[in-house]
Amino acid sequence: MFNQSKERKMGIILSILALIFLSTILTNTASAASIEGNAESIASLETALTFVWLILAGAIVFLMHAGFSLVETGLTRSKNTANILMKNFMTISIGVLVYWAVGWAIMYGADAAGLIGTSQFFLSGADNSLWNSWWFQMVFAATAATIVSGAVAERIEFKAYLIYAILMVAFIYPVYGHWVWSGSDLALLTGAESFIVDAIGVGLHDFAGSGVVHAVGGYAALAAVIILGPRIGKFKDGEPVAIPGHNLAYAFLGTLILAFGWIGFNGGSTLNANDAYMNLVIVNTFIAAAAGAISAMFITWFKTGKPDPSLTANGLLAGLVAITAPCGSVENWAALIIGIVGGLIVYAGVMFNENVLKVDDPVGAIAVHGYSGSWGLLSVGIFSVGIGNGILSDAVYAASEPGLIYGGISQFLIQLVGVIVNIIWAFCASFVIFKIIDVVIGTRVSEEDEIAGLDTVEHGIDAYPEHSTTESE
Amino acid sequence: MFNQSKERKMGIILSILALIFLSTILTNTASAASIEGNAESIASLETALTFVWLILAGAIVFLMHAGFSLVETGLTRSKNTANILMKNFMTISIGVLVYWAVGWAIMYGADAAGLIGTSQFFLSGADNSLWNSWWFQMVFAATAATIVSGAVAERIEFKAYLIYAILMVAFIYPVYGHWVWSGSDLALLTGAESFIVDAIGVGLHDFAGSGVVHAVGGYAALAAVIILGPRIGKFKDGEPVAIPGHNLAYAFLGTLILAFGWIGFNGGSTLNANDAYMNLVIVNTFIAAAAGAISAMFITWFKTGKPDPSLTANGLLAGLVAITAPCGSVENWAALIIGIVGGLIVYAGVMFNENVLKVDDPVGAIAVHGYSGSWGLLSVGIFSVGIGNGILSDAVYAASEPGLIYGGISQFLIQLVGVIVNIIWAFCASFVIFKIIDVVIGTRVSEEDEIAGLDTVEHGIDAYPEHSTTESE
Amino acid sequence: MFNQSKERKMGIILSILALIFLSTILTNTASAASIEGNAESIASLETALTFVWLILAGAIVFLMHAGFSLVETGLTRSKNTANILMKNFMTISIGVLVYWAVGWAIMYGADAAGLIGTSQFFLSGADNSLWNSWWFQMVFAATAATIVSGAVAERIEFKAYLIYAILMVAFIYPVYGHWVWSGSDLALLTGAESFIVDAIGVGLHDFAGSGVVHAVGGYAALAAVIILGPRIGKFKDGEPVAIPGHNLAYAFLGTLILAFGWIGFNGGSTLNANDAYMNLVIVNTFIAAAAGAISAMFITWFKTGKPDPSLTANGLLAGLVAITAPCGSVENWAALIIGIVGGLIVYAGVMFNENVLKVDDPVGAIAVHGYSGSWGLLSVGIFSVGIGNGILSDAVYAASEPGLIYGGISQFLIQLVGVIVNIIWAFCASFVIFKIIDVVIGTRVSEEDEIAGLDTVEHGIDAYPEHSTTESE
Repeated sequence: MFNQSKERKMGIILSILALIFLSTILTNTASAASIEGNAESIASLETALTFVWLILAGAIVFLMHAGFSLVETGLTRSKNTANILMKNFMTISIGVLVYWAVGWAIMYGADAAGLIGTSQFFLSGADNSLWNSWWFQMVFAATAATIVSGAVAERIEFKAYLIYAILMVAFIYPVYGHWVWSGSDLALLTGAESFIVDAIGVGLHDFAGSGVVHAVGGYAALAAVIILGPRIGKFKDGEPVAIPGHNLAYAFLGTLILAFGWIGFNGGSTLNANDAYMNLVIVNTFIAAAAGAISAMFITWFKTGKPDPSLTANGLLAGLVAITAPCGSVENWAALIIGIVGGLIVYAGVMFNENVLKVDDPVGAIAVHGYSGSWGLLSVGIFSVGIGNGILSDAVYAASEPGLIYGGISQFLIQLVGVIVNIIWAFCASFVIFKIIDVVIGTRVSEEDEIAGLDTVEHGIDAYPEHSTTESE
Repeated sequence: MFNQSKERKMGIILSILALIFLSTILTNTASAASIEGNAESIASLETALTFVWLILAGAIVFLMHAGFSLVETGLTRSKNTANILMKNFMTISIGVLVYWAVGWAIMYGADAAGLIGTSQFFLSGADNSLWNSWWFQMVFAATAATIVSGAVAERIEFKAYLIYAILMVAFIYPVYGHWVWSGSDLALLTGAESFIVDAIGVGLHDFAGSGVVHAVGGYAALAAVIILGPRIGKFKDGEPVAIPGHNLAYAFLGTLILAFGWIGFNGGSTLNANDAYMNLVIVNTFIAAAAGAISAMFITWFKTGKPDPSLTANGLLAGLVAITAPCGSVENWAALIIGIVGGLIVYAGVMFNENVLKVDDPVGAIAVHGYSGSWGLLSVGIFSVGIGNGILSDAVYAASEPGLIYGGISQFLIQLVGVIVNIIWAFCASFVIFKIIDVVIGTRVSEEDEIAGLDTVEHGIDAYPEHSTTESE
Repeated sequence: MFNQSKERKMGIILSILALIFLSTILTNTASAASIEGNAESIASLETALTFVWLILAGAIVFLMHAGFSLVETGLTRSKNTANILMKNFMTISIGVLVYWAVGWAIMYGADAAGLIGTSQFFLSGADNSLWNSWWFQMVFAATAATIVSGAVAERIEFKAYLIYAILMVAFIYPVYGHWVWSGSDLALLTGAESFIVDAIGVGLHDFAGSGVVHAVGGYAALAAVIILGPRIGKFKDGEPVAIPGHNLAYAFLGTLILAFGWIGFNGGSTLNANDAYMNLVIVNTFIAAAAGAISAMFITWFKTGKPDPSLTANGLLAGLVAITAPCGSVENWAALIIGIVGGLIVYAGVMFNENVLKVDDPVGAIAVHGYSGSWGLLSVGIFSVGIGNGILSDAVYAASEPGLIYGGISQFLIQLVGVIVNIIWAFCASFVIFKIIDVVIGTRVSEEDEIAGLDTVEHGIDAYPEHSTTESE
């Protein structure tokens, strides 16, 4: 009896426990909540947050095309305003369609020999994840092309430029991009099975594209301006002559819009909204930008006695270009140095271009995007904290090996190789393509047309019909 | 004894199990984690993400008012700059207060007979969800009004315009909006119990407002310019004369800002940050935009021998206006076609307005927003993939029935009805209101004032006091 | 036997229960999902969403520097364009580095006596959370400095301005900021242990910085222009003379960019993306902005017979400045009143400055940011709904005590004290610093240089070299 009653009690307790257990499960089912269901919802939310992040980051990068338009328009003469605006406007328009039809496939399609992508033309078979990636990558591709447009301003045939822009977005940019960002095992500069990576032991680190986007644009521009030659009046007896731009307000507004754009450019390159190190990326980006502006201002102040506005603006851009590769890899103080050097490079680069190479780049695109882009790639090899040594130890966007400053060497070597390959590819591919266009249809407007201004000649309009202007030159 | 000890063991086991069970529950309570708690947190996060998404999307749409200001200023003469800037600036200012006090209530308040909303004036009783919705809808309402401001530029009385803008935001826009977006069962063009929807079998699909926002603005503008008449000098012996705008850089900067704004306009119209198809929306939007710019450029190049900058810019906008309705419903290739046609429509529309209707629309607003908006509505009926046929099968923002191209007919019919109702409503309501204003206080400035320019006459200032200008006309 | 078999059954049941229990746990572990794991993922997501929100909100605030540049350039003469652009550009560049090295530490470092922060110089020891906070706070700090740059335009030495900007970001701004936003128990105006807070019984409420950012900038500007004196020609026989700005389009574009920026400024000041009351913040912000624009337009219309564009634009800014403190604390109708009063204040303030104080503030910065900022602080004490009285009852960003209108008095008192302390600190600190700079290196350019324009004198360039200008003076 005693036992039985005890057993009965236990039976009751068991039953209650079982009921609680079942009721919990049933309640959860009724409210559609379960551990697995929650986990799935969480994963969906993580994806949704990343989608929102990359759409907005891409939006901000898209606005950079307004920034480039303004900088290029402001730093050139008013008689070419409509032409410059149209070149930039068509660059992004062409960029969208060409990167949709061809560019993405060459860059991210199925790899062939580590050199080129070969599938997903016209985004065939795309789902939302691919559309999201394409959107963010597309605004980058169009950026690379638009860098060239500034350097060739005021003398290039509109038709020739359009053809060049198509080939830039379809071929020159995505091929180098494939070598670095495709994720293929064979990818020339980053794939584990690439002979280069195998030889050096580590892959190239170019977080947001100091090399992939900016330096490619910069050296492609260098090739183009060499073929194109300088504007009439740029050199007198071999000495460079300043041709002032017609509106400094546009140039500064454009520069600030570009800096705004870089928040999306570098921030969005995390490609993942769920990792906190996007914050380091943003902080480093703006420390380098500020440092570039300040160092460029001081060098011009020191050299000429007055702080020069357009070089100061370009100094900020050079700081931004330089930090684009290392922004997730370095400490704040290193970002400061990278920016300062970027600002100095833009000054030295402009001097070098005008006095040594004797090339004419009206907006300084080659120095800002080319030379400072190369510096950005190299700086990873110098200042990268590496992984697992306790410095910024969880910085998930850091280069895998430490830089020279922390005793590493291999990361520096691969960055150096990356710089060299980048220059050779961008310069040569652009040179060949531009030369072919030059031979086939011509790239330079007539002397008469250049003096008249491209707005009237190419577009039949005057961008400012009411302003009586005093032609500078 | 044996039994007892066994029972004791079982008692101990039971107790342990119960303890584990309880401790789990208690631990969870202590750490505030439970399945239901997690599910609630997830739901909160989903809402928070949507709030963030719509605040930022609305922010981007808000900036479109800067875009409209710049496009309208750039495409008109400098003597009316201050007036145009003030019109746009007051449109958004008035828009905020009027859509808060009246517009929202007419559009989304409790339905009366499927025709009009009747509650929530001054957002009475609003909570955060309503505030969030209002914010995103408000920037749309002000957009519809600002479209008219460009068409009536350079000759409308400032006071008359302000009254018109109030009535646009309070009445013309929200009434048609109620018919399409209110969600009421009786809503004229979308409600399940509407006699139109009942007759055709499917509701109108206008995802982000090709009709609700753009075409309403465009046809309202048409009515206004008919009453207002053309600017002095626009027609000579019945032939249109080009009156060039004074600053093409503003026009292009404005266009790029508008394109940026469309990321919020179409992207935000998902109204839900948790659905991945926002990516399809964005990709289609930019494919159509690019296609519109390119087709408009080529048609002008073909027709005049030179690619025309302002029509090219308008071509991009026409592509954007057209894709606004179908962006979540169509495949990429269809977006391409929709954009190309949009670009052609803007050219044909401007020719039609100037040569056939003989109306004067300084910025092309009627062609861009009206004609291309109607095309956007129709294009849904042609290219929509429909639901459940395996093409983009989960595209949650797609029209419910397939378009002509996929063998459907009913969606095309309702879109056609939507276009017709849209034109009739916007044109007639605007005509009546504008006529009343015209009769009561007058809408057109004196000939003398028009020649002097509205800046001096209406505002007593010169927008560019230092520039000596060469008046074009 | 019976007992034993019963016990066996119970043993079996127990074993099954235990198995279910274990298998559930094991399954969860296998799929990496558990209640605690989910809860952790949710917390991570909440943090990630806040990071994304604050990076983007900060980005939008960053763009305000373009807005300030344009407003200040547009409202001054073309001969000082390059100088003004450079001042703004260097303000944000300096702002980044100085707020990184010093400003943050003074504002948010370990408290000393409730007066000043003393740690985290150079963000030493920062993690992602700190970097995120710094980014958002940094763009605010640079804003406070840039407010001064407009007031001192067209006559300040570039070098003197740079030194002043450094001290503003390093010292003047962060010290007052420490008193309000540091969160320290001793913080002068908000800490529970502060003698002021203790005496009045409630802390100062300045949600997004009507006082901390705007009024500090405004009264610092007042001190600077008193020392600096008016521009040549501003006063003739003691009467103010209008010196029109050279480009109204820049001024309006800048104003709209600033309004866009305020979405980040006030919205981001929630510092938490997971609270729904950010929606109330945004709605109140734009109601006040619109009301400010409309009331300023009507007051100028009433007083001069014509609606004045630049005062209307400043009216919108004054509405925004005023609502910055109370935007999370008040009902929509109160936001309307706050904005209307802001618009009136800017008109009255400009009149007061020109006719009574006889100071020269080319862009109206003192009235917009100073006077309207003080009004914003006070308005919290008048219109705040308080917590727990059922009005907007869960408004988490509300001031803790109700305002005068709801029968409270203590909140009004502390706001009044906050206004007084704010004026005294900003004015005196700025006066002393500016005076020292004035004595040591001089702050004002020579009469000759001022007439020639600062662009040529300070930077050796002409911002618009092609435009023949008609000097307004």
